[in-house]
Amino acid sequence: MKYSFFDVKPESAHPEILKFVVDHNIDHFVDSKEDRYKYLGEEHIKRSFNIPQADIHFLPTGTASNVIAISIMLKPYEAVISPSTGHINTYEAGAIEATGHKIVQVNTPDGKLTQSHIAEAIARCENDYAVVPKAIYLTNVTEEGTVYTKEELAKIIAFAKNKGLYTYLDGARLAMALAEKAANTTLQEFGQLDLDAFYIGGTKNGGMYGEALVIKNDQLKPHLLSYMKRQGSHLAKQRLMSLQFARFFDSDDLWLSLAIHANHMTQRLRDGLGETSLTCEGQANHVFINMKNTDVKKLEEDFEFARWKRIDENTTKIRLVCSWATKAEDIDEFLDVVGELQKN
Amino acid sequence: MKYSFFDVKPESAHPEILKFVVDHNIDHFVDSKEDRYKYLGEEHIKRSFNIPQADIHFLPTGTASNVIAISIMLKPYEAVISPSTGHINTYEAGAIEATGHKIVQVNTPDGKLTQSHIAEAIARCENDYAVVPKAIYLTNVTEEGTVYTKEELAKIIAFAKNKGLYTYLDGARLAMALAEKAANTTLQEFGQLDLDAFYIGGTKNGGMYGEALVIKNDQLKPHLLSYMKRQGSHLAKQRLMSLQFARFFDSDDLWLSLAIHANHMTQRLRDGLGETSLTCEGQANHVFINMKNTDVKKLEEDFEFARWKRIDENTTKIRLVCSWATKAEDIDEFLDVVGELQKN
Amino acid sequence: MKYSFFDVKPESAHPEILKFVVDHNIDHFVDSKEDRYKYLGEEHIKRSFNIPQADIHFLPTGTASNVIAISIMLKPYEAVISPSTGHINTYEAGAIEATGHKIVQVNTPDGKLTQSHIAEAIARCENDYAVVPKAIYLTNVTEEGTVYTKEELAKIIAFAKNKGLYTYLDGARLAMALAEKAANTTLQEFGQLDLDAFYIGGTKNGGMYGEALVIKNDQLKPHLLSYMKRQGSHLAKQRLMSLQFARFFDSDDLWLSLAIHANHMTQRLRDGLGETSLTCEGQANHVFINMKNTDVKKLEEDFEFARWKRIDENTTKIRLVCSWATKAEDIDEFLDVVGELQKN
Amino acid sequence: MKYSFFDVKPESAHPEILKFVVDHNIDHFVDSKEDRYKYLGEEHIKRSFNIPQADIHFLPTGTASNVIAISIMLKPYEAVISPSTGHINTYEAGAIEATGHKIVQVNTPDGKLTQSHIAEAIARCENDYAVVPKAIYLTNVTEEGTVYTKEELAKIIAFAKNKGLYTYLDGARLAMALAEKAANTTLQEFGQLDLDAFYIGGTKNGGMYGEALVIKNDQLKPHLLSYMKRQGSHLAKQRLMSLQFARFFDSDDLWLSLAIHANHMTQRLRDGLGETSLTCEGQANHVFINMKNTDVKKLEEDFEFARWKRIDENTTKIRLVCSWATKAEDIDEFLDVVGELQKN
Repeated sequence: MKYSFFDVKPESAHPEILKFVVDHNIDHFVDSKEDRYKYLGEEHIKRSFNIPQADIHFLPTGTASNVIAISIMLKPYEAVISPSTGHINTYEAGAIEATGHKIVQVNTPDGKLTQSHIAEAIARCENDYAVVPKAIYLTNVTEEGTVYTKEELAKIIAFAKNKGLYTYLDGARLAMALAEKAANTTLQEFGQLDLDAFYIGGTKNGGMYGEALVIKNDQLKPHLLSYMKRQGSHLAKQRLMSLQFARFFDSDDLWLSLAIHANHMTQRLRDGLGETSLTCEGQANHVFINMKNTDVKKLEEDFEFARWKRIDENTTKIRLVCSWATKAEDIDEFLDVVGELQKN
Repeated sequence: MKYSFFDVKPESAHPEILKFVVDHNIDHFVDSKEDRYKYLGEEHIKRSFNIPQADIHFLPTGTASNVIAISIMLKPYEAVISPSTGHINTYEAGAIEATGHKIVQVNTPDGKLTQSHIAEAIARCENDYAVVPKAIYLTNVTEEGTVYTKEELAKIIAFAKNKGLYTYLDGARLAMALAEKAANTTLQEFGQLDLDAFYIGGTKNGGMYGEALVIKNDQLKPHLLSYMKRQGSHLAKQRLMSLQFARFFDSDDLWLSLAIHANHMTQRLRDGLGETSLTCEGQANHVFINMKNTDVKKLEEDFEFARWKRIDENTTKIRLVCSWATKAEDIDEFLDVVGELQKN
Repeated sequence: MKYSFFDVKPESAHPEILKFVVDHNIDHFVDSKEDRYKYLGEEHIKRSFNIPQADIHFLPTGTASNVIAISIMLKPYEAVISPSTGHINTYEAGAIEATGHKIVQVNTPDGKLTQSHIAEAIARCENDYAVVPKAIYLTNVTEEGTVYTKEELAKIIAFAKNKGLYTYLDGARLAMALAEKAANTTLQEFGQLDLDAFYIGGTKNGGMYGEALVIKNDQLKPHLLSYMKRQGSHLAKQRLMSLQFARFFDSDDLWLSLAIHANHMTQRLRDGLGETSLTCEGQANHVFINMKNTDVKKLEEDFEFARWKRIDENTTKIRLVCSWATKAEDIDEFLDVVGELQKN
Repeated sequence: MKYSFFDVKPESAHPEILKFVVDHNIDHFVDSKEDRYKYLGEEHIKRSFNIPQADIHFLPTGTASNVIAISIMLKPYEAVISPSTGHINTYEAGAIEATGHKIVQVNTPDGKLTQSHIAEAIARCENDYAVVPKAIYLTNVTEEGTVYTKEELAKIIAFAKNKGLYTYLDGARLAMALAEKAANTTLQEFGQLDLDAFYIGGTKNGGMYGEALVIKNDQLKPHLLSYMKRQGSHLAKQRLMSLQFARFFDSDDLWLSLAIHANHMTQRLRDGLGETSLTCEGQANHVFINMKNTDVKKLEEDFEFARWKRIDENTTKIRLVCSWATKAEDIDEFLDVVGELQKN
């Protein structure tokens, strides 16, 4: 195996993150009230996104973040609207349904929710016996490798609010979305969007573990600790997650820098593929290519990636995702192998 | 604040654990199948407890371990028997009930379940409209600071099995239980008990995060990954938890050594208190003392500990828990302050 | 079998109830908006209890009423306080837990909740990791055959409200409670109590099926239909339940009359037992007697009743419940058999 | 309002059903073991469908039947495959999700599941983090007014079994499906299909309340009472539901006769519409017509029916459903009004 194009597959963390944790793993005489490191991650996030009023909670996984954020928005008979390709609908083993809520699914061409999708989902639930949609679920970067502009997000949020819906964004790969030029969105601008809640992904961007759930809507703030505990998602040693985010959002903007690197590597991949007869899709750190099944098999001898979709009997769409850990050599090696395959 | 007598309050990890993680946080070219570090923790646990056939899963919290282990044992209408003081019944914000299951509670004098408690719980549910008890929940060290001998465990497990019940043990503080001489149980002996599942606590014994759920009963093994994902408890970077347990159960038996230290410190505390007029209870790393409320208040100026129980208008039972991080000076400082209080 | 002392065992309905249903089972040309019979039960209930502002919903079972009423009061991490003998805690196969909520149990001598029980339950949940009690569950007649006075209810309701708790009363046998002189409570007085919700039992008082859930608190009124549908408890033909309650609360006060009859029969039973050496407990339509196991066995040859509790090796407490269908001959026959047993 | 084309809207029951209940609403001296009426409905169903080994349970609603049947088939992480138009997916307010299970939805042109739909749903869930499909949900008559032939059912059932899936059929309108000539299926033939469970609809065919859940697969039979109780769906007076089904399946085949009548009335409606320029779809007791919105509005002045689907800006598909209670005059009156509208 030469390289894995899964952004969490390199099952390790960025050295700077680890170093910061090690450096501040001390001082057991403090009680939690005096422990500035416990709150440092929170402080740096608030500053970086300019969200001084938000509540920040560190959770072990993205699924836990999604489940808790959506739970606090919904009464038992209420539902969340999601693209049918949404992570909560496809890769979380029914975690939302496990809390008793239905996902109202809409088909999108590219993983991006629009006003008309929301309108359609609401219309579908207009009978008295249907669930009542009360929240929308967005991802950015989406599962289909697309990125929202800040204008698109502002519009869909305004539309949803106008319909009485809460808005939530799954930011497992938010760093790569904000590092994508086409998004044209700074962290501060993202922070000012009228989302009720979102989570800032750490694990897919070099963290050891832990995601940062941000609650902006005051109504949703109470008793988060109870929700976390009940979900089995309250880690005893909060400081250790806080430290990771403190380092991510330290003055050198490591979080964004790592994502910029991931996106650059992806562009190098795109550029290289551009010289082949293959066409590729995908923004930020995502590339999708349609490939002959025989070529896919050959590639799998050396590289790890997702078979994304069956196109036809002979063709499969594959997904390649780059990360903070991808090196130029990894890309070049991949392009070499593809080049060889193209020759034959 | 001079010292915190909560075993997870020192919100940091043992340096050796961190060092081992840092040392093996490398090598992103491997795929998961080739990653020996991902499985190293598992292997060391199997060897240490002599449970080669068991399945091991790393979970972020003790609550997640409890919820998943109990979920896989129960059909929807089935219930778990627990002491009313059991962690699942008091400190998990209803996490078991969140999965739709009732906890059948029994009152125990000391947090230890006995055959007669089980019989009583079964009898209480004999009507057609009651839940059906199908599992028992044990903790060791118990929440009341007591420890089971291996003979006690063997008897209660045999009794439960005979009644058709699954047996599960919450080992948040299993290390301190096995380090307690009165338990008279080696790791290997513990591993041979006929428990269907148990978890090995890491966080309360110097780990950063992560507990090791052990499934011994073959019927309970399938699809654990699905349960973990659905619970929001599947961490992407499994290797990092595995490494912690690999270090805990390396050839120097760090896991047990740290617990022996915690228990020694606790004995020093007990010995010191023995010279006062106060009487103390508790085994392993637990000490409970009945104290005048005025003294409790004074102690709280310098130390952090739990007010465990109201005894009467003037008296409170407090709980002190020592850990791998407790130093002899911490104990002596505490004893000094208590000594001063006793003089007045 | 001569007689069954279970109030629902006579698996039939009062003839007047059936007659009213048959008499108005017509007129299929009306749409639901014009169907006065669909709303007649609701209207008669509002008038009888003087609760013009309340919402009334007809549900198939008492368990469905309990589950829905308690669900609308609780957020996911919140809990309901109940006597450990409460129906929701013992005879509903975990229906409350099935909605994700914990029952905080308190031990009561007689099935009646008091202010101190509530205070105790709240105190038990004061730690950050416990569930948060947010509602109380009362039954009247209680499972232990006791009845609240209106003063007792007023006090406990005021206490609970003051603690921020919702109040709910399970009225499976409310008719017999209000027919009990010691309760000293009229329907109108009961209606004025500050309960947030309660249900009016039909099935145990001669109805075919169906209970009437009453929601008084405006905050709890929205979207009941959704809760009912989601619970599988929304019957398509609402008119047929409405008609039963319309007959119960027609001008001749059938509902109360049937309960008065049940209580009279119970008093006849008590009076007869008073002439034996047996002592009996229980109010309204309940009688509990401690009996030798050998006598219990003999009685069971002719009568059906509940073995309520094991007293000691030789003695069992049995429960006898009378109903609208109990006749004086049934009682006399039972007393004769008991008399014979006493002679030996 | 002249007539309601909803099959449950005539909120009353067939007089013969009521008469049978009244005639046998007696005899409170029997205990449940001696009560032949309690079991009579069960016996008649077993004979009529030739399913002597099946278990029969009477439940208050179709939703309760669906939820319980599907619950007993699924482990927590497992899911049920349903047409996106399936009743469980659209009209039950999230009742399946309330039990923690996801519905894997497939788009069907006509509400009928085929082998390829099942294969597609399974393929979609092949990743490790998806739910695991374990059951299929069929309706007959479907929500789209179509009917399966016995050959179609046999094939889809065999295919599902081969994939390791349980098979369940929602028979809210099973009578009208079996009364449809195109289905070419007798009750006995239907009974021999290899379904694991199905329910026999009573309410939509003239019953007061109650549906009969049939469990054929022995593995699914245990502890149904517990599931019913936990769901709040166990009615105390089982005899009264049993009596309704005893009458339905008495020697005169009332259940099938009523459905034949409903389908005849529907055919009369189709025949009449055939003389207009409108085209109609739908089998059994269903008719769908595309109509100008202005005509729909006029029709609504006199008739009640469902606006089924928006076709375009000016056109709506409406649904008309006939029942045991529909009379030839109702149809003719409707046709007259439509005829008048067509003239203009």
